[in-house]
Amino acid sequence: MTLPAPEVPKETQFDLLSRYRSVRAETEQLATPLSAEDMQIQSMADASPTKWHLAHTTWFYETFILRELNPQYRVFDPRYHEIFNSYYHSLGQPFSRPLRGLLSRPSIDEIYAYRAYVDRAISTVLQGGGEERRLNNLVLLGLNHEQQHQELLLTDIKHALSINPLLPAYINNADAGSGENGQKVEALEWIAVNGGIFNIGASAGGDQANEGDNFCFDNETPSHPLLVQDFRIASRLVTNGEFLEFIEDGGYRQHRLWLSDGWSWVNTHSVQHPHYWRRVDGSWQQFTLCGLQPLAYAEPVCHLNFYEADAFATWAGFRLPTEFEWEVAACQLCTPDDLAAANLLEKRHWHPAASHQQRQLLGDVWEWTSSAYQPYPGFRASGDAVGEYNGKFMCNQKVLRGGSCVTPSSHIRSSYRNFFYPHQFWQFTGIRLAGDAL
Amino acid sequence: MTLPAPEVPKETQFDLLSRYRSVRAETEQLATPLSAEDMQIQSMADASPTKWHLAHTTWFYETFILRELNPQYRVFDPRYHEIFNSYYHSLGQPFSRPLRGLLSRPSIDEIYAYRAYVDRAISTVLQGGGEERRLNNLVLLGLNHEQQHQELLLTDIKHALSINPLLPAYINNADAGSGENGQKVEALEWIAVNGGIFNIGASAGGDQANEGDNFCFDNETPSHPLLVQDFRIASRLVTNGEFLEFIEDGGYRQHRLWLSDGWSWVNTHSVQHPHYWRRVDGSWQQFTLCGLQPLAYAEPVCHLNFYEADAFATWAGFRLPTEFEWEVAACQLCTPDDLAAANLLEKRHWHPAASHQQRQLLGDVWEWTSSAYQPYPGFRASGDAVGEYNGKFMCNQKVLRGGSCVTPSSHIRSSYRNFFYPHQFWQFTGIRLAGDAL
Amino acid sequence: MTLPAPEVPKETQFDLLSRYRSVRAETEQLATPLSAEDMQIQSMADASPTKWHLAHTTWFYETFILRELNPQYRVFDPRYHEIFNSYYHSLGQPFSRPLRGLLSRPSIDEIYAYRAYVDRAISTVLQGGGEERRLNNLVLLGLNHEQQHQELLLTDIKHALSINPLLPAYINNADAGSGENGQKVEALEWIAVNGGIFNIGASAGGDQANEGDNFCFDNETPSHPLLVQDFRIASRLVTNGEFLEFIEDGGYRQHRLWLSDGWSWVNTHSVQHPHYWRRVDGSWQQFTLCGLQPLAYAEPVCHLNFYEADAFATWAGFRLPTEFEWEVAACQLCTPDDLAAANLLEKRHWHPAASHQQRQLLGDVWEWTSSAYQPYPGFRASGDAVGEYNGKFMCNQKVLRGGSCVTPSSHIRSSYRNFFYPHQFWQFTGIRLAGDAL
Amino acid sequence: MTLPAPEVPKETQFDLLSRYRSVRAETEQLATPLSAEDMQIQSMADASPTKWHLAHTTWFYETFILRELNPQYRVFDPRYHEIFNSYYHSLGQPFSRPLRGLLSRPSIDEIYAYRAYVDRAISTVLQGGGEERRLNNLVLLGLNHEQQHQELLLTDIKHALSINPLLPAYINNADAGSGENGQKVEALEWIAVNGGIFNIGASAGGDQANEGDNFCFDNETPSHPLLVQDFRIASRLVTNGEFLEFIEDGGYRQHRLWLSDGWSWVNTHSVQHPHYWRRVDGSWQQFTLCGLQPLAYAEPVCHLNFYEADAFATWAGFRLPTEFEWEVAACQLCTPDDLAAANLLEKRHWHPAASHQQRQLLGDVWEWTSSAYQPYPGFRASGDAVGEYNGKFMCNQKVLRGGSCVTPSSHIRSSYRNFFYPHQFWQFTGIRLAGDAL
Repeated sequence: MTLPAPEVPKETQFDLLSRYRSVRAETEQLATPLSAEDMQIQSMADASPTKWHLAHTTWFYETFILRELNPQYRVFDPRYHEIFNSYYHSLGQPFSRPLRGLLSRPSIDEIYAYRAYVDRAISTVLQGGGEERRLNNLVLLGLNHEQQHQELLLTDIKHALSINPLLPAYINNADAGSGENGQKVEALEWIAVNGGIFNIGASAGGDQANEGDNFCFDNETPSHPLLVQDFRIASRLVTNGEFLEFIEDGGYRQHRLWLSDGWSWVNTHSVQHPHYWRRVDGSWQQFTLCGLQPLAYAEPVCHLNFYEADAFATWAGFRLPTEFEWEVAACQLCTPDDLAAANLLEKRHWHPAASHQQRQLLGDVWEWTSSAYQPYPGFRASGDAVGEYNGKFMCNQKVLRGGSCVTPSSHIRSSYRNFFYPHQFWQFTGIRLAGDAL
Repeated sequence: MTLPAPEVPKETQFDLLSRYRSVRAETEQLATPLSAEDMQIQSMADASPTKWHLAHTTWFYETFILRELNPQYRVFDPRYHEIFNSYYHSLGQPFSRPLRGLLSRPSIDEIYAYRAYVDRAISTVLQGGGEERRLNNLVLLGLNHEQQHQELLLTDIKHALSINPLLPAYINNADAGSGENGQKVEALEWIAVNGGIFNIGASAGGDQANEGDNFCFDNETPSHPLLVQDFRIASRLVTNGEFLEFIEDGGYRQHRLWLSDGWSWVNTHSVQHPHYWRRVDGSWQQFTLCGLQPLAYAEPVCHLNFYEADAFATWAGFRLPTEFEWEVAACQLCTPDDLAAANLLEKRHWHPAASHQQRQLLGDVWEWTSSAYQPYPGFRASGDAVGEYNGKFMCNQKVLRGGSCVTPSSHIRSSYRNFFYPHQFWQFTGIRLAGDAL
Repeated sequence: MTLPAPEVPKETQFDLLSRYRSVRAETEQLATPLSAEDMQIQSMADASPTKWHLAHTTWFYETFILRELNPQYRVFDPRYHEIFNSYYHSLGQPFSRPLRGLLSRPSIDEIYAYRAYVDRAISTVLQGGGEERRLNNLVLLGLNHEQQHQELLLTDIKHALSINPLLPAYINNADAGSGENGQKVEALEWIAVNGGIFNIGASAGGDQANEGDNFCFDNETPSHPLLVQDFRIASRLVTNGEFLEFIEDGGYRQHRLWLSDGWSWVNTHSVQHPHYWRRVDGSWQQFTLCGLQPLAYAEPVCHLNFYEADAFATWAGFRLPTEFEWEVAACQLCTPDDLAAANLLEKRHWHPAASHQQRQLLGDVWEWTSSAYQPYPGFRASGDAVGEYNGKFMCNQKVLRGGSCVTPSSHIRSSYRNFFYPHQFWQFTGIRLAGDAL
Repeated sequence: MTLPAPEVPKETQFDLLSRYRSVRAETEQLATPLSAEDMQIQSMADASPTKWHLAHTTWFYETFILRELNPQYRVFDPRYHEIFNSYYHSLGQPFSRPLRGLLSRPSIDEIYAYRAYVDRAISTVLQGGGEERRLNNLVLLGLNHEQQHQELLLTDIKHALSINPLLPAYINNADAGSGENGQKVEALEWIAVNGGIFNIGASAGGDQANEGDNFCFDNETPSHPLLVQDFRIASRLVTNGEFLEFIEDGGYRQHRLWLSDGWSWVNTHSVQHPHYWRRVDGSWQQFTLCGLQPLAYAEPVCHLNFYEADAFATWAGFRLPTEFEWEVAACQLCTPDDLAAANLLEKRHWHPAASHQQRQLLGDVWEWTSSAYQPYPGFRASGDAVGEYNGKFMCNQKVLRGGSCVTPSSHIRSSYRNFFYPHQFWQFTGIRLAGDAL
């Protein structure tokens, strides 16, 4: 089975409607390989059912745009307000997150009808046209929100399918097993970056969304100067083969390599290898969106949590980059060609690929940084419900940078900050090494 | 929507095949009101998805009959062995019970194909005929097993649908709301029963299944004499209206009424009323298989756990019967007319009905007894995997008697022992009072 | 160190005061080997600190006798009422049980002052004399209550000391290590007991305490006839050596031997041997009140929970006795000589002893029966606070019979019912096998 | 009762021995108000018994100095190595932290003998003299370690005593209740601080300890330049009275004020006020080391966790300072007079005091900063066991600055970084507000 890549519209500055249609169609296309039963299941509190992603992204437009801006708008079903609210407490008590998988009703057909209903209403509003800056910004936010859920839809269903002893594939991909273990790995080189005072973050003001292509989330702002010291950064990602050396060297059994909380995590869960790895008949396999596949040594290691990434870096004698070092390096090193070549959602490759003389700063895997997720100096979340989007999560989490093989390409920019708790591993997360200047 | 009652075949002594077809068809008919998504969900570890019930009952015939008795038999899918094994450790490690709701594959269509495949094989074997006593006994056991799962299918889906804020009905029933609160309640009378030495249990030997209609489970054997003292037993079940008096008298707040473990349960879960009751706009409603309905005061209270039943009896100044008192009373009081009139699965009434001069010993609700579920003197579980059916559960549970409104009528007999943990409430469980002789 | 045995007073029928003084002195003597720090610690919610036992037994007299019967009585400290109430909800919310070990105040000196204060008041009341039947009964209940806590004091401190890597002994006993492994074990013989109708329980009425020596707890009443079938019972307890055979035969790894809840317990806790056993340098040791000692194969196995006792009996091809079989056997087989020879608290032996042609029905270890702890027919708990003593625990527990090596001898009688949850092991609990008649 | 302040020796550069004696004596003096039973108790896994602090600080010298530097040294008791190891996995598996309160042996007398034994050995070594830089550095580290435990000893016993319904005081202090509620509160003023590039951290190299008075922990190094923007900082701490306004304004019920993890914490624990506050007969009381006292409105609020501090700042329309802003402000604003006037351990005041025209940057309460506890650029933990001291905790915690009323004064310096998890409240932790430049 092959999913066609989304048709990216040739967009004039305000052709939001085409972009809206494109994003909405992409989400539905990502769900096509799944049965109604697949779309129902939720394998942990952190994840959501496919059905729920399809409905919640729709609820977002209905709640923040249609109900806000159009007094005549009639909601599709008032009972959806509670069950498809994720975490916006300003809007009432959301339905219990760990129980989303029990919502067999509304059915998937009703959810598609909900999507169509909201799509018609948004189309009408957008075609009404005019210079509605606030409308445009909210639609743009809705689209970026939906694209984040496209990635989550894939990581969540991957986790859910992995629980099933039948190990079903999300999609079959002729390419998936191509990574033979003899594949040559690029030598890792160290790129020296000079320190100095750099502008970090995106230039938007307090408003979360900009016009046209310059959208950014509020957590990327305000842009501000930062003093960075000289540093080195690795020319490519850490590979499965390299991580296997760590395991074979007893990496999971040497307390010295681990942060204290990481060592507790290893011992509480008796962790011995990355989550999706399996030892089958003496050789390593890896569960992927294309089912169980032989572990390709040359490909980037992924689905590590922060503790594993940090322990590997310690073992290797290096460290993880700060999010600021990463941003400085990306600004200096990435060219439009890098973006064009990056292994992102539109490539339909479904898992990280081996480096072929590419630096992989963009795509393949989200790169753990050593930086805690904190507000930039001068950051203020907006006071309305949309203000709950990012700010309230700025505690206890770590920043990741660069995007993964299931990130939509329009989400790739050097200032983008993704964030997860240190123990979480179910995203496509990997390692880039850094070091102090020699 | 109306589900037709099952066609009960006019059965000759060995017409097992008709009976097999009838039971199998009934299970599938019970699933017809449900979508693929409904059949997928599992709302707690004690319950299973509808899909899983459909498959597991099939696995039972495949495993204990087809694989055992027919060396040529080819299993439908060898991977089903792990995922549809419930708790037979002799057959390998069963798939984790709380995760059954995550098995989106095999699909419901594949499970129906599995059922058809096994049905053909069983039909062939049964038509092969002969005097295969062991075969017949195992098929009879399989049918009784499947009928138990018919009841579980309904109680499990009731629980799962109750989690959904939309409160969907399993089935719409014109009758459901008929219980108006002004309905007259029969006066409760006390029936005196003389003590003596009685034969308790069923007369089968060590073998779990008897020929023809005389099937019983091994836990009903051996039949044995027991000394019972004079006692009294109530002429009908406790009603919703009577339980409401208990609540209004502060029953859930008076520690003196409760067993120590029951009082912990009340406080840990802040229990204030039976699980499916809801206070809506100042009046009591009850979630039923037909959706949310006004609470009918004259109908038997149900979905209580043992602690609630025991506390009510203490509050009322009486006690629960022992399972032996219940059996003695049922033997003396029940006539074939009682069975014919009883509110059982075939009546398609879907919830307990008010007493109309009936004693309701059979049907409506399972009646909690004060007896711990323990082996009868001389009980021995069989040594093979089938021996895991009952014996290993004879600890920490309580016996219930009499059958409920979703119990198949062929499961009704005075020696039948149902059993659940004291804290469990999701079956149709209620209260019959008893007392010492005056 | 040796603790002298308690001086048992030559008692006239109403010489309650001497008995009171004797019991009170014995409790304090049992605490003498312990430091203030030892007396402070609580190693699990089921256990209590020594200090707390010393105070709570005193609180019992103050609350149920002095405050009830003497309006002039001034309590020692009103704040003690909450912290030394165990579980009498009628008297207010007791202090949280798992936190008892945090009550560093009152100090042990203050608690001894509290004991002396209450002792003086009770002496005065008792010397007041007269025919105060209710007073006498309550004092008798208080004494029996305190004696139960003498046993708990020892089992609780044993558990607490066992957590300490230094493995300190409660007391040093020259005898403790005498059990050499070559010691000869009596052959186990089967004693046939004829069935029939027997009177079970003690003859007291509804009142918990009788005059003089005929005290019994309310849970032993009412006495009632019971039909018991022929059975066989083992001539001695199961030994450590026999239990070791069970282990070496893979007993803890064979699911077939275990009740379903027992098998969960084994796997959840990865149990591989009895709790106090330790494998040290290739040989088995056992933690005792006299510290770590070599495991004596001929001595009775102890500190098993019900699941272990039941699994062993299944492995051996037998079963546990019912509590009624045990009582019938004890009535028929035990003589005053058995009581005189029994290994009980007054022997100061501190652990079970090998059988020397003795049946060990009395003393050494509490014997798990297969019977659930349920009320006898016609049982009614008294309506006042004392009524919370036994009745509310009659659910989810199992009956044990016979007394242990740390049970006071006046607690030994054939109708005495001890009870614990099936998973609990910290009492001196062991196994006597039974079987159906041949 | 009054504890004399420690005698601070007039110290020549290398008079380490006097300082050693002084620190050791101070620890023992802090334990004098406590009974053996008080010293035994541990009220949560985060805290340790007083006894354990007394022993563990001793173990530190024995392990890292005596055993390392003196081959002839005989350990006091080899069995102490496991039980008094806190978290140095390089030295073997430490005894389970939550069970420290169960170690009734060794007794407190044995622990004092242990202290004396080690003191003699350290004295001998120090008197041996010479230019032992490594020895001196390790002793200095040991002293700083012991001083940290002096503070913990007090915060831990405060928590333990607070569980007891008797609410015993650690010490009686005539001063404790002096804070009358009418006391005038200083007006809060805003101090503007100009941004720029500042040197952050202490100047020591990789070595944890410096000579003489210049000791610092490794986590304060390396010193490095940092770009800080203009900011404002409050002239004093937030008071109890101000925090009460937050409560009365519904602060604990407004989700908008809270970080997402903080809101979960509030709801999971139903938090309504700071942990040690109690509502007694309509007025607020606070549990202190001097027992229950009326809440003094003018005194700094303390024992808040990070979530509470952050929510208060949001409610007030401000924010917490970063640790860097705090350090810059402290360097610019604090004079030797501030240190002399600060409310620190030596003052024996035992709780935070109202500001009297003082800025309270030093002493009174640890001030939560918004900064995650992370390594400074170029930080490397040392490779030996001592290297486990700080580095492995640099994840999931927040930095606090400034010291509290129970911090030894020699621990006060502008570069000192304390760190705790965001949910922890049992230290003397409070709030200083900050804001962006106007």
